[in-house]
Amino acid sequence: MAAFTDSIKQFQDRACLVVQGPDFAGAVATIATLVGEHASQVIEFEQFTDPGDPQQLFQRVEFHVDSLAEVMPNIEKDLQLQLPPLGLTWRLIDRSRPKRMVVLASKSDHCLVELLWRQNRGELPVTIPMVISNHTDVAASVERFGIPFHHVPSQGPDKSLAEADILRLIESQADFVVLARYMQILSEDFLERIKVPIINIHHSFLPAFIGAAPYRKAKERGVKMIGATAHYVTADLDEGPIIEQDIARVAHSHTAEGLQERGQYVERAVLSRAVQWHAEDRIVHTGNQTIVFA
Amino acid sequence: MAAFTDSIKQFQDRACLVVQGPDFAGAVATIATLVGEHASQVIEFEQFTDPGDPQQLFQRVEFHVDSLAEVMPNIEKDLQLQLPPLGLTWRLIDRSRPKRMVVLASKSDHCLVELLWRQNRGELPVTIPMVISNHTDVAASVERFGIPFHHVPSQGPDKSLAEADILRLIESQADFVVLARYMQILSEDFLERIKVPIINIHHSFLPAFIGAAPYRKAKERGVKMIGATAHYVTADLDEGPIIEQDIARVAHSHTAEGLQERGQYVERAVLSRAVQWHAEDRIVHTGNQTIVFA
Amino acid sequence: MAAFTDSIKQFQDRACLVVQGPDFAGAVATIATLVGEHASQVIEFEQFTDPGDPQQLFQRVEFHVDSLAEVMPNIEKDLQLQLPPLGLTWRLIDRSRPKRMVVLASKSDHCLVELLWRQNRGELPVTIPMVISNHTDVAASVERFGIPFHHVPSQGPDKSLAEADILRLIESQADFVVLARYMQILSEDFLERIKVPIINIHHSFLPAFIGAAPYRKAKERGVKMIGATAHYVTADLDEGPIIEQDIARVAHSHTAEGLQERGQYVERAVLSRAVQWHAEDRIVHTGNQTIVFA
Amino acid sequence: MAAFTDSIKQFQDRACLVVQGPDFAGAVATIATLVGEHASQVIEFEQFTDPGDPQQLFQRVEFHVDSLAEVMPNIEKDLQLQLPPLGLTWRLIDRSRPKRMVVLASKSDHCLVELLWRQNRGELPVTIPMVISNHTDVAASVERFGIPFHHVPSQGPDKSLAEADILRLIESQADFVVLARYMQILSEDFLERIKVPIINIHHSFLPAFIGAAPYRKAKERGVKMIGATAHYVTADLDEGPIIEQDIARVAHSHTAEGLQERGQYVERAVLSRAVQWHAEDRIVHTGNQTIVFA
Repeated sequence: MAAFTDSIKQFQDRACLVVQGPDFAGAVATIATLVGEHASQVIEFEQFTDPGDPQQLFQRVEFHVDSLAEVMPNIEKDLQLQLPPLGLTWRLIDRSRPKRMVVLASKSDHCLVELLWRQNRGELPVTIPMVISNHTDVAASVERFGIPFHHVPSQGPDKSLAEADILRLIESQADFVVLARYMQILSEDFLERIKVPIINIHHSFLPAFIGAAPYRKAKERGVKMIGATAHYVTADLDEGPIIEQDIARVAHSHTAEGLQERGQYVERAVLSRAVQWHAEDRIVHTGNQTIVFA
Repeated sequence: MAAFTDSIKQFQDRACLVVQGPDFAGAVATIATLVGEHASQVIEFEQFTDPGDPQQLFQRVEFHVDSLAEVMPNIEKDLQLQLPPLGLTWRLIDRSRPKRMVVLASKSDHCLVELLWRQNRGELPVTIPMVISNHTDVAASVERFGIPFHHVPSQGPDKSLAEADILRLIESQADFVVLARYMQILSEDFLERIKVPIINIHHSFLPAFIGAAPYRKAKERGVKMIGATAHYVTADLDEGPIIEQDIARVAHSHTAEGLQERGQYVERAVLSRAVQWHAEDRIVHTGNQTIVFA
Repeated sequence: MAAFTDSIKQFQDRACLVVQGPDFAGAVATIATLVGEHASQVIEFEQFTDPGDPQQLFQRVEFHVDSLAEVMPNIEKDLQLQLPPLGLTWRLIDRSRPKRMVVLASKSDHCLVELLWRQNRGELPVTIPMVISNHTDVAASVERFGIPFHHVPSQGPDKSLAEADILRLIESQADFVVLARYMQILSEDFLERIKVPIINIHHSFLPAFIGAAPYRKAKERGVKMIGATAHYVTADLDEGPIIEQDIARVAHSHTAEGLQERGQYVERAVLSRAVQWHAEDRIVHTGNQTIVFA
Repeated sequence: MAAFTDSIKQFQDRACLVVQGPDFAGAVATIATLVGEHASQVIEFEQFTDPGDPQQLFQRVEFHVDSLAEVMPNIEKDLQLQLPPLGLTWRLIDRSRPKRMVVLASKSDHCLVELLWRQNRGELPVTIPMVISNHTDVAASVERFGIPFHHVPSQGPDKSLAEADILRLIESQADFVVLARYMQILSEDFLERIKVPIINIHHSFLPAFIGAAPYRKAKERGVKMIGATAHYVTADLDEGPIIEQDIARVAHSHTAEGLQERGQYVERAVLSRAVQWHAEDRIVHTGNQTIVFA
């Protein structure tokens, strides 16, 4: 864990403010002045104005604050006093406190191990309290990394017991959940009760090949590229806000299995980027879309 | 036309044989021996075996033959004698005779001009007998290249007159037709009567965003990549065999118009590659798919 | 020119401020407040802090100002009053006034025509007062677009007369110059006297294959990808600040000529992006590097 | 090892013939006929003709032979009888016998673990008799996969003892060696004595940034893309035949460490592809270049 601990240290006294809401003249100056009163140094400042109707403003500022932990309540009080009256919503994050990521997997381990590995190398600013699977195939891979593994089988049509078990395990342990090729459909009830964001990796270039068996469908349709899509999970299957996508070139000589093997490398990379951006609070929602300050 | 004429000269005495059919032991040797009896030199030899049931064989051989024009009938007689009894279909092409490509366009000229330009530079082994459009916007661009332009308007719901005009213009003038963003749906009757292959460029990463307005749909869905797809036209709209696809990365900051502007560069490139491969007889059909020996 | 004129209209009353210099606490707020006093709306706001020693600040703000042309002198007075005392340099641009781009070319027209075409379609916010070439091959291509063409031959080892001619033609006509595969080395004296930035396209993935004949060298070295590099021209040949690069995959079956043909499409795309970013004031220099707010 | 064992089974009774030498009329038919006398089925047949002077021929045929192990000596006798008289060199490989790959590493494990992982998942048709490192940092990662680890320290300027140790360990245990970020320069003497091919991964887009610290050099030069190159090792450092290259886009905001982190993902992917192609006998040497039948 030395690599991870070292990598977290660099975020000491580093805050991140994400603001969104209706745009108005002077908005940048207002927020910059507010940040400026607390920050010893601004590291990143990004703004996007969506020219919709009404026009919307999105900002992400990363900045240094001396003794952040101590003064954080003051900054929060200040933000709450000034931003909501302007119609703006905000969140302030202490970047030295990594988010807690719970991973759900099934039998295949390519996405799971990629996440565990990157975290272990200090490349993902998260902690991993546990991995849960409806199978035991990945148990050894998980325990190798010193991470607790829970087996929650999910047989039969009624998933409510399994989902209740998962909710009990996760309760107050997770800031977000990642479905690393978890091959169970989650109920609306589960999605409502979990209260934390869920990121899924879909093994196609959404919205192409929605649903099951996308590599087989891709082979049948004769596409020349396959893809993968990381998205937030909503009650509409495969329809949640897209975070990241990528593709790989394929040829007629690839079998459906060959597509799958190639695709797994795309899935790994796409999911890892999505998780990283979420963990760094680089993603803002607007409607069913995401703005990524990457 | 100097560039084009120069580029065609290099194909003097160059033949291309494309064979497909059921695989059998010794198939490569059989065809290679047959070619070897006529060829002074094999330039490219590609084979793909589709491990379906029954197993299918696809071969493309490009070779030099001294005085090709004279001996071509002999080679054809030989092929017809030997290959059909083995269940194989074949075509033999004299590569020094460029295919005749008729282009249909509407108002936008990005795909059209890219094709005219590449042909003019000697990069596409085709001649272009004419360009037909249902508008006059692109007339000047076409005439600049010294290529005849025909305006065939297509108003109202009944397209049969316009289609009859197009068929009359094209008759015995085209080896294939390219729809370079031609914004009219062609009738089944037209597709049956035209007798030559038609290549279309669809401005999305098919099968995502089938139908009209794909850039607007892509913006609404919040995808992180847009694409373009070149395919052969069949009676099933947007469902014909895919020849080539490519993508470009986009971001939340791009408007639907911005997606379209970026996408046009992908469309140009994808359509050009598809046309080139078709012109060089590098594409073989199998079911609703293509094998591209590129 | 309708497309170009339309596209320029959208920049009416739109200003762009680019600031750079030593970072200090409150820098974002200071500049944002300054802009906020004049802007009716901020469209883009980008900042990059280079964590060097001393730390450097780079900002680009694009904003609307009512009646920009009238109030521009006031904004400039204000900026000059406040920014230089903080050690900051700045430039303010009226985006409705396109930059004047003079293009120098030689015999090949792929980069040249791509630029003329994009400008003509309204995709490049520049005007093109003239194209100059040391050959006459591209004259017809240029005149087709209604742009003045000047032939300035450059024979013999002494380039001083030709360079003097070019300087005379360009004088007070150009905001920047593009070398669109101009195959002459410019003297240090010329570079000193021209007073406007020069963008060059090098047909390799710099710093690989510096100097002449990069495609031949790439073939000899057996690389699996070829590239192109757009950079600002300095007295050190091929060593100026890099603006943009891209690559294409190649294979053993490509001849040196094949590499060149493929590479030309990369060159076109890379140079166009570099020109666009320069024309939109998205590029800031720091040392021998560029920061691109794209 | 179940995955690996399963994946090897599919190569039962599968042979691969690689032939190269001077081209002649009828070459394809000659070799195809020869193969056809033994093969029950041709799976892949690839040929490339290098139009040099004299013209060179390269072929790779993959085919099924009933009871391959028994009849292999007969096929070899046949090939030796017929091909050398035509000036052709050949190698025949039993694909069901995976090559033995010894990996040399130093402190960083990203390339090493990627290879171990792919092999473990049955995606690389190799066995790994051992991993050798001049440090102990990667020992645990290696042993997790059940693979023997050897520590051969390499202090001081005289590497001859360390190299002798490595040669002793490898002797008759390796069909090829991979330098997975092995940070020691191997002596000419070692390269002469090892007798098996060595594949290295260089962390730059060769020939750019030859030698040490390529990410630092890339940062200084301000490139917009970084790359990685897998190549065979020869006595000329970083000058051996290139097998595969790839790149990743970078921006001004990336530090040299950021470039390195990004680059490691490119290195992993590039080295894995090169190893796979070598393991599958898809690479042929010609001069200082490679032909890859991938």
